[in-house]
Amino acid sequence: MKNDKSSDEPHKLRLKRLGIETGQENVIFMRSDCHICRAEGLMTYARVLVRGPQGEIVATLNHVIMDGLLPAGEAGLSEQAWKSLGAKEGDPIQVRHLDPLTSLGKVRAKIFGHRLGSSDMTKIIDDVVSGRYSNVHLAGFITACASHGLDKSETVALTVSMIGAGKQIDWGGSVIVDKHCIGGLPGNRTTPIIVAIVSACGLIMPKTSSRAITSPAGTADVMETLAPVRLDLSAMRRVVDAEGGCVVWGGAVDLSPADDILIRVERALEVDSEGQLVASILSKKIAAGATHLVLDLPVGPTAKLRSKEDADKLENLLYETAVNFGLATRIIQSDGSQPVGSGIGPALEARDVLAVLTGAKAAPQDLRQRSLALSGALLELGGAAEEGSGVQLAASTLDSGRVWSKFQAICEAQGGLREPPIADYQVDIAASIAGRVTGIDNRRLSTLAKLAGAPVSPAAGIKFQVHLGQKVQTGEALMTIHAESKGELDYALDYNKSVPWIVEIEGEI
Amino acid sequence: MKNDKSSDEPHKLRLKRLGIETGQENVIFMRSDCHICRAEGLMTYARVLVRGPQGEIVATLNHVIMDGLLPAGEAGLSEQAWKSLGAKEGDPIQVRHLDPLTSLGKVRAKIFGHRLGSSDMTKIIDDVVSGRYSNVHLAGFITACASHGLDKSETVALTVSMIGAGKQIDWGGSVIVDKHCIGGLPGNRTTPIIVAIVSACGLIMPKTSSRAITSPAGTADVMETLAPVRLDLSAMRRVVDAEGGCVVWGGAVDLSPADDILIRVERALEVDSEGQLVASILSKKIAAGATHLVLDLPVGPTAKLRSKEDADKLENLLYETAVNFGLATRIIQSDGSQPVGSGIGPALEARDVLAVLTGAKAAPQDLRQRSLALSGALLELGGAAEEGSGVQLAASTLDSGRVWSKFQAICEAQGGLREPPIADYQVDIAASIAGRVTGIDNRRLSTLAKLAGAPVSPAAGIKFQVHLGQKVQTGEALMTIHAESKGELDYALDYNKSVPWIVEIEGEI
Repeated sequence: MKNDKSSDEPHKLRLKRLGIETGQENVIFMRSDCHICRAEGLMTYARVLVRGPQGEIVATLNHVIMDGLLPAGEAGLSEQAWKSLGAKEGDPIQVRHLDPLTSLGKVRAKIFGHRLGSSDMTKIIDDVVSGRYSNVHLAGFITACASHGLDKSETVALTVSMIGAGKQIDWGGSVIVDKHCIGGLPGNRTTPIIVAIVSACGLIMPKTSSRAITSPAGTADVMETLAPVRLDLSAMRRVVDAEGGCVVWGGAVDLSPADDILIRVERALEVDSEGQLVASILSKKIAAGATHLVLDLPVGPTAKLRSKEDADKLENLLYETAVNFGLATRIIQSDGSQPVGSGIGPALEARDVLAVLTGAKAAPQDLRQRSLALSGALLELGGAAEEGSGVQLAASTLDSGRVWSKFQAICEAQGGLREPPIADYQVDIAASIAGRVTGIDNRRLSTLAKLAGAPVSPAAGIKFQVHLGQKVQTGEALMTIHAESKGELDYALDYNKSVPWIVEIEGEI
Repeated sequence: MKNDKSSDEPHKLRLKRLGIETGQENVIFMRSDCHICRAEGLMTYARVLVRGPQGEIVATLNHVIMDGLLPAGEAGLSEQAWKSLGAKEGDPIQVRHLDPLTSLGKVRAKIFGHRLGSSDMTKIIDDVVSGRYSNVHLAGFITACASHGLDKSETVALTVSMIGAGKQIDWGGSVIVDKHCIGGLPGNRTTPIIVAIVSACGLIMPKTSSRAITSPAGTADVMETLAPVRLDLSAMRRVVDAEGGCVVWGGAVDLSPADDILIRVERALEVDSEGQLVASILSKKIAAGATHLVLDLPVGPTAKLRSKEDADKLENLLYETAVNFGLATRIIQSDGSQPVGSGIGPALEARDVLAVLTGAKAAPQDLRQRSLALSGALLELGGAAEEGSGVQLAASTLDSGRVWSKFQAICEAQGGLREPPIADYQVDIAASIAGRVTGIDNRRLSTLAKLAGAPVSPAAGIKFQVHLGQKVQTGEALMTIHAESKGELDYALDYNKSVPWIVEIEGEI
């Protein structure tokens, strides 16, 4: 900020902490009758530049029109803004209008169907990461990209911009393997198992995972019920140096911070489009230093990818973008017709992971098989197994107990293995007729788990108990809803009643 | 809201007024440790249903994490939410999760290129008007409609939905004339003049005008510097019954309230797309009871419509949609190459209007000619003049002084004619070289006027002093910036320095 007349002493206010959490959009609370609002003509919802002793932030202005909350000469900040500014009680601040954001002109161009060049994309993402976009602007950018799609060069440009806006980890030239599943299949929690298998086999897999976008659980949410995942970069390095693998939350190591900001708005819109998906995945992987990547694309009528055609299209964009960055990449299309394992929700999925790792009798075999298939591909791609023998190596290592030992060691290194929580409220949903299971709606199942409280309430979700083709009796439990509060349990039960079916049963004649 | 267990006594909080203005998105402030947040698993930024003694609203949750602001057992509301709920200090409220909005699925379908049917559109607009959409959802809807455009039947459906969501005025079968300019031309403030002319000639023109969307002034902003414009429906009727015409703010009579909500978000995005523009214009006109409509589409390189082709496309969609609703419609494409009149900003434009109405020597002739042309079209369309003689009737009535009398009578009936304010700060922008004016950038000129404070500061804006083709001397004033505060004056001056040109002058050799 230049030192103009608006930064003279009379244009200062003192900060008062109010303790209001407004979400990720920074908010400043100022009296409508304060000298700055009057001198600068600042109205409610104006976007302003706030300068404090430690730096500056952009915030949305909320006027305070009554006495009591703020004494004259003081201003408040939302908790997020307080943190971003590094504020202390009583800090002097200056406030002025935000200059027009030139990058918004590029967002408008995209809305009206123009392509975004790489410098356009960089400007947009820089403004996003520095907090210059309000929620309205973020939603406009995300919607425009989803509406028109991003072509290959735009996807590469978005990926480059997202990598550049955060930290990048340098592993000094080692082979670094990574995997990603595009999701959409409830309970498909292979990652913690795969990390343990491939690191037990000698590969290096420093896994940074995300939290749920629109699903009942992300890998970071699940892993957090088993061990701490909020590790910073140096803590993550220590774990990987010691054990060859980790499963931490990507947001805590500041890889692709733009992704974390965009994801929150994508979640509110429940929009997760192709180009953004590719940039989101690859920016995180490349920033984390991956050199060899296996991608899992589940395909099924109620999965994220509904048809082979959609899957081929996404596979193509993923592959070409990954190759553009020099990543050795293998993409696997898998069965996406029904949930994997029995748990849906952070703690319930964690229990499935533990069952597979410990070789429990009740361990879900589908989760085990998928984990072995993907581990096998990674072992081959990363050079730890001959072509065609990866799955076998993965299975023998898992069955030897070495994978479970490795997983425990990783959890200990991350801060200590812990027991996933158990929900206070558990209610069975029973079959209303006898017959054969002919359909499972993954999307409704996810909604049900989310209404029950997942992923915010870690113990909440669904324990799913049937598979396609299975015979069930009248009154037999198809699933159990787990909830941490009565209110959430009721939402889930109401929803279950309101939809035609989540599990389709065809009566046998 | 059904009477479930979550509405028992322990689930109530008492309202405390905090006096925080958050803009149009309702916000509820709740202690993060309150029993409802804990029982219902409510996180910051959750969308919740708030029920009070007078009704219910949807709001976004902000947590309060420190003592002091809210005592235990109390909750606060943003001022907008307080008003919408009809709240009183100490009112008991209940709060619960908002059920998933099914209409958002339709917004997502539009994002991914599907058409919206009429029932989809009605559901979306009903949810918009009842406050169920957050700013993120509104931005997603607006951007999706702008990205893919709306076809004719979608535009009709949006118009129908927007009309249905508000009040409609019934004038008992009379011929009701109306006009609209799509804007984009600074200073083009013909409406108050036209209303006075056509009502002086015996037609009925109950004009409801809007405030600025992305421009330095809307007709309602300008008229408000001359007379009160916040009239409710019965007050508006009294004015029209007495004088045959009025110029009031449409927002106060609750015509097409969806439009007012969408416009605020369109303004933040600076997006104003074809289908939404048509629905916005026609929903207001039809809800206001118009039967005969003249539309002005200025076309020029820096106007809203840049080419004849764009204008023809919009004209077509406007015409076909209007005809669908049985409106007698005439559309006029006009010169949009430079500003009209000399004032840009509410009070400055009002002074131009007064000059034309009183026949002042310095009255801008371009504003006079445009007003006569549009009035002539309305007089012919409404049956008050023979085809081809409308302009002549308009001119003779204006020159007779009867139009100025009529305008004064209308202002008095609206609550009293008043003097437009004058800005404290006025600074000339001079020509840096001598030569001929070869270009005027309407968009930059609008930005300059907005940075100077228009329309929020009514006296702010630009007094523009040259026309295309005019010869200027070095140091001659091209325009004068008017501002109500030093800060806004500085923003405008900084902007003027930062752009290559607003007025292009070609030096003469």
